[in-house]
Amino acid sequence: MAQCGNARAGIADTSVHGSFVTPAFMPVGTRASVRGIDSPRLKECGAQIVLVNTYHLMLRPGATNILNLGSIHRFMGWDGPILSDSGGFQVFSLKSLRSISEEGVHFRSHLDGSKQFLSPEKAVALQETYGVDIAMVLDECPPSGVSKEEMVSSIERTHRWALRCHKARTQEEKTSLFGITQGGRFLDLRTESAERLKEIPFDGYAIGGVSVGEPKEVMYQVLSMHPQELPKERVRYLMGVGTPRDIVEGVRCGIDMFDCVMPTRAGRFGRAFVLGDEPYLNIRNARFASDMEALDPTCSCVTCSTYGRAYLHHLFKAGEMLGPTLLSLHNISYYQRLVKELREDIVSGCFEQRYLSEDRRWKNTKNNDVS
Amino acid sequence: MAQCGNARAGIADTSVHGSFVTPAFMPVGTRASVRGIDSPRLKECGAQIVLVNTYHLMLRPGATNILNLGSIHRFMGWDGPILSDSGGFQVFSLKSLRSISEEGVHFRSHLDGSKQFLSPEKAVALQETYGVDIAMVLDECPPSGVSKEEMVSSIERTHRWALRCHKARTQEEKTSLFGITQGGRFLDLRTESAERLKEIPFDGYAIGGVSVGEPKEVMYQVLSMHPQELPKERVRYLMGVGTPRDIVEGVRCGIDMFDCVMPTRAGRFGRAFVLGDEPYLNIRNARFASDMEALDPTCSCVTCSTYGRAYLHHLFKAGEMLGPTLLSLHNISYYQRLVKELREDIVSGCFEQRYLSEDRRWKNTKNNDVS
Repeated sequence: MAQCGNARAGIADTSVHGSFVTPAFMPVGTRASVRGIDSPRLKECGAQIVLVNTYHLMLRPGATNILNLGSIHRFMGWDGPILSDSGGFQVFSLKSLRSISEEGVHFRSHLDGSKQFLSPEKAVALQETYGVDIAMVLDECPPSGVSKEEMVSSIERTHRWALRCHKARTQEEKTSLFGITQGGRFLDLRTESAERLKEIPFDGYAIGGVSVGEPKEVMYQVLSMHPQELPKERVRYLMGVGTPRDIVEGVRCGIDMFDCVMPTRAGRFGRAFVLGDEPYLNIRNARFASDMEALDPTCSCVTCSTYGRAYLHHLFKAGEMLGPTLLSLHNISYYQRLVKELREDIVSGCFEQRYLSEDRRWKNTKNNDVS
Repeated sequence: MAQCGNARAGIADTSVHGSFVTPAFMPVGTRASVRGIDSPRLKECGAQIVLVNTYHLMLRPGATNILNLGSIHRFMGWDGPILSDSGGFQVFSLKSLRSISEEGVHFRSHLDGSKQFLSPEKAVALQETYGVDIAMVLDECPPSGVSKEEMVSSIERTHRWALRCHKARTQEEKTSLFGITQGGRFLDLRTESAERLKEIPFDGYAIGGVSVGEPKEVMYQVLSMHPQELPKERVRYLMGVGTPRDIVEGVRCGIDMFDCVMPTRAGRFGRAFVLGDEPYLNIRNARFASDMEALDPTCSCVTCSTYGRAYLHHLFKAGEMLGPTLLSLHNISYYQRLVKELREDIVSGCFEQRYLSEDRRWKNTKNNDVS
């Protein structure tokens, strides 16, 4: 583990599927597929670990099916580490389709309306059945804007559920379990959440509820103090974040892991992250129609080493499905390269200095916001 | 050049972008993109030469744009041979939007309604501007079901236009030009068309109008005699064909080149070509939900070497964009392997024997039709 200011560079081990270096960015494969990118290409992009979603997979293809097929790794053709989100965020987003009790959450499938149930114990069992390397506790995810009173009772449930999740484990040797702090914009509740979670010996600690509609300032406030409240010797994971700028800020504040749909979602909409003065290029813009340069001439991804911007512009104008795939592929490569370079800067001890120097690499990530 | 019965195996040279072996199947990249497949992957599938469409490219991105960008090869990141269809078929399909005269075809763009004009001279100029390796003459493509009288006057125009195309060339050293026979279901008109076309020293000869709505029997009748009417020492290209079975039949009758949207279109609809008793698998079928076998266990494409059927089934059920891409990729590999094996059988002299023996390789291609 190297450290530069609060920024950390380490190695996280999984029991069965090897290790990954941190800071790490996880591409999101909600339904066991990172949109448009096959597993060999995902690896070529530099991705080390992929995120899947417990809620989506329990509905389709179903945990029993995944078990019968071997494991989620075999199912999705990915032999590296896999982390599953517990599905709490998705279930709580269902609103009218769910009812919450201390026991767990009853809800109806968004696919066929069938009755479903998710509890701390069930969430752990599902994730162990999938065979993921890192499971997440089931937490309550209150919407942004709840009162402090509501947030207090919400984090209390989250903590009780965290303990139940930890007790429910049956595959400790294979599947790590991460706790999740909540508390929204209330910094004292965040502190309390961290204190309570630390009492449970999780393998890692995640910060939840910062990308659920709260203003960006809330996240930066939380980042400014909260990561340091989590155990130094454990991995810290900032859930659902973020823009390249957010990644840099998160790393600076001591975060080790990130996940976000941004590189793939932006790619599908024709936005390509690049080095330079702009935070991203909108490839649909007419000025790219005759631009033969690569998206990012310093990038070695398949997209940049094969095609110029004019072609990518053409694909989006023509509605060709290859366009979203190629831009997603580039954007994931961009994120992987970003965390790789941040790591190198931490290891070589120049992270803080480069962060302050506004050098070309991070210029656009610091001055702009693409969310 | 090896021959086995009427089946031929050869090598076709292009002036600038190397050679390809025949029989060859060209994946279709109408708008300079084989749907969902990037160029490096297309090469991995075994594709040697790709087809693009003059009509679509003249409207978007436009010939001048392609010229300014270097060439169609550079534009689409493909350094192997490229053949362009002349756009006659597309223009004649516009029906209400076009008016035909001896000079050429006036039509309106299907994109923006703008007035456009295509003539034999313009078609050749466009294709030379793109920088393709093989250009096709502009032919008149009568719809299926026209009377013999109408067909006679149509092929006469096609022949006059073919001559004008040949005269219009300015880049003979770089761009080959193929003639196209027409005549529909009238075998004597096909014969006449071949006779007339042979008077013009084209670099290759194509058979047009067999995949435009005529019953399959018409194609098989045309195949039974017409390829032998074309010059032995020139490449023979059956346009827009076809199913795996059609490819086998075409090769048996002396065809060297094919193009068809079938592998990609079928792939997008969840159909995978495989060896065995079935002509294709519909991956959406429930029986594949728990099938971990590769689509085709004998196939070495990225799809088959990475994923099982259960995962591909899941992708289609979940509406993930990766599904169509992976099946298209497999299907193109299947077609490439088919023509490669046909070639090997021709070279080793066992083509006719294997064709008659109904061995496993071709079983499904001979007994079934997937069109």
